[in-house]
Amino acid sequence: MKKFINHPDGVVADALKGLAASDAGVRVDHENRVIYRAQPKAAGKVALISGGGSGHEPLHGGFVGLGMLDAACAGEMFTSPTPDQMFAATTEVDGGAGVLHIVKNYTGDVMNFEMAAELAADAGVAVDTVLVADDVAVEDSTWTAGRRGVGTTVLLEKIVGAAAEEGQDLATVKALAERVAANGRSMGMALTSCTVPAAGKPTFDLPEDQMEIGIGIHGEPGRHREPIASAKEIARQLVEPVLADLDFTGAPVIAMLNGMGGTPLIELYVMYGEVAELLEAAGVAVERNLVGNYITSLDMAGCSLTLLRADDEMIRLWDSPVVTAGLRWGL
Amino acid sequence: MKKFINHPDGVVADALKGLAASDAGVRVDHENRVIYRAQPKAAGKVALISGGGSGHEPLHGGFVGLGMLDAACAGEMFTSPTPDQMFAATTEVDGGAGVLHIVKNYTGDVMNFEMAAELAADAGVAVDTVLVADDVAVEDSTWTAGRRGVGTTVLLEKIVGAAAEEGQDLATVKALAERVAANGRSMGMALTSCTVPAAGKPTFDLPEDQMEIGIGIHGEPGRHREPIASAKEIARQLVEPVLADLDFTGAPVIAMLNGMGGTPLIELYVMYGEVAELLEAAGVAVERNLVGNYITSLDMAGCSLTLLRADDEMIRLWDSPVVTAGLRWGL
Repeated sequence: MKKFINHPDGVVADALKGLAASDAGVRVDHENRVIYRAQPKAAGKVALISGGGSGHEPLHGGFVGLGMLDAACAGEMFTSPTPDQMFAATTEVDGGAGVLHIVKNYTGDVMNFEMAAELAADAGVAVDTVLVADDVAVEDSTWTAGRRGVGTTVLLEKIVGAAAEEGQDLATVKALAERVAANGRSMGMALTSCTVPAAGKPTFDLPEDQMEIGIGIHGEPGRHREPIASAKEIARQLVEPVLADLDFTGAPVIAMLNGMGGTPLIELYVMYGEVAELLEAAGVAVERNLVGNYITSLDMAGCSLTLLRADDEMIRLWDSPVVTAGLRWGL
Repeated sequence: MKKFINHPDGVVADALKGLAASDAGVRVDHENRVIYRAQPKAAGKVALISGGGSGHEPLHGGFVGLGMLDAACAGEMFTSPTPDQMFAATTEVDGGAGVLHIVKNYTGDVMNFEMAAELAADAGVAVDTVLVADDVAVEDSTWTAGRRGVGTTVLLEKIVGAAAEEGQDLATVKALAERVAANGRSMGMALTSCTVPAAGKPTFDLPEDQMEIGIGIHGEPGRHREPIASAKEIARQLVEPVLADLDFTGAPVIAMLNGMGGTPLIELYVMYGEVAELLEAAGVAVERNLVGNYITSLDMAGCSLTLLRADDEMIRLWDSPVVTAGLRWGL
């Protein structure tokens, strides 16, 4: 295992130390493993919280900041944070206008955020939840009932974060979040496994000449394996199932070509060139895009495609300022 | 070889297609393999050009845009662009105020930019050159007489790009570039080799339990190999030679902890946490930082540290707006 770590059990804590040192816009509660915005909370602003297992950086801690999340709860590697963490974050960020929990559809996350929401409601905080379940690859999976929640989460945190920043109320913010979640679709694939530090060996075996289509972000099984193909053919295998699941024509689309952590940017650009060509041929109008590492799977070599069937309001919110470690523009 | 490619010989062309599709701020001359800003050139603005072998993305093509480069010439993988490309770019971007060539110190790049500068001068363009040779690891190397040019190039392109955007003249811009080049130092290391697509196998062998300290961005030999150590120890081996080479106390410092392409962000944050601690203990005041993939070496797992002994003017220029695929803030 070739990794920059001090000890396999200390990776999450050490990475949070580094994030805190590099991003002056956040402060980290190291005991609870919650990343907060550094500036005081704005009264009257709906607060957004997300969280999940670590190993997907910059998601979610790298998306805390102006125009995006108010707090992120970091779990152990590929393991849900606890209800205690989420409850602490929820009460801390509530400025009186309520809190929205953004939850990726994995059984542990769903259950723990549910418990945290109940605790927070008992404590008098208005809490609502949006669930992201956008992965078209499989219906159920190792840790999921229903579709897994993946790349749409990034786009949702950006768009809904902008709405909250404008002072929209909890019901409006929640409705927008539901609309984004309903209109996003993703599909991923892997060239290699990832290696969880504490395990010390690859999560699964993938022969040197094989790839796995439909992989999950924890290395959960996808649809099938086959010999490694050209970038053009891989792009087709990502684009087709996404387009088959939702009509992306007749609306402005936001596309994300996401690296899984071990894939260099030059290869992501090769992939994006092929994806863009296929989308154009299919009559899909990509108005905004991201190419890079946004929701990763440790050191996995691979990529995923996320498309969001947006509308003018979402595009407007997409373009408004965001200042986080993982996404920044406008200020 | 597990890579997203169509054909080993087409990777550079395909990646440029993807960059052009994703970044509306650039246009690509695919025949000459030059990336230009999409908007018309500003009269009276000094133009900045860089370039070099491909495989280091986002450097340089991802740094073309407002507040940074006017054009970048993409060579074949790890191979200098030709004087023809550089000459074409130079005459194209000159708005009458002259052109600065930003050259990393590799024999091919130096020679070819020199020829291009001569051709451009003959064509009546005022051209000047700044050479970056900031790698403290080795004195000479496989493709270099003198120190190799690495991470300081990124910081220089940002800072000098801001100065050019403000309308500073060629002599002033060049003097600033020299000051940045003189005050930047880098040191890198690798956990794994990289694999050049056309070669199809790792550039060098690095046993599973070994790392190489002082590696170059093309996999050129560094100082020595040793068993893989903790992040803390690796950080020490990057920080110490950099601090030994230049006094970084008593000035604002810009730090970059750069990933080599195959290292995920969570590990870069672990490394940055250790680096920040060592720098603080040494009395170095890091005022700005970057953590991420900025000057890569294809799929190499590894990282490099760059420190720039800045001044108030450099910090001011650092903070001004930049809108490129690889670096963006302020607008």
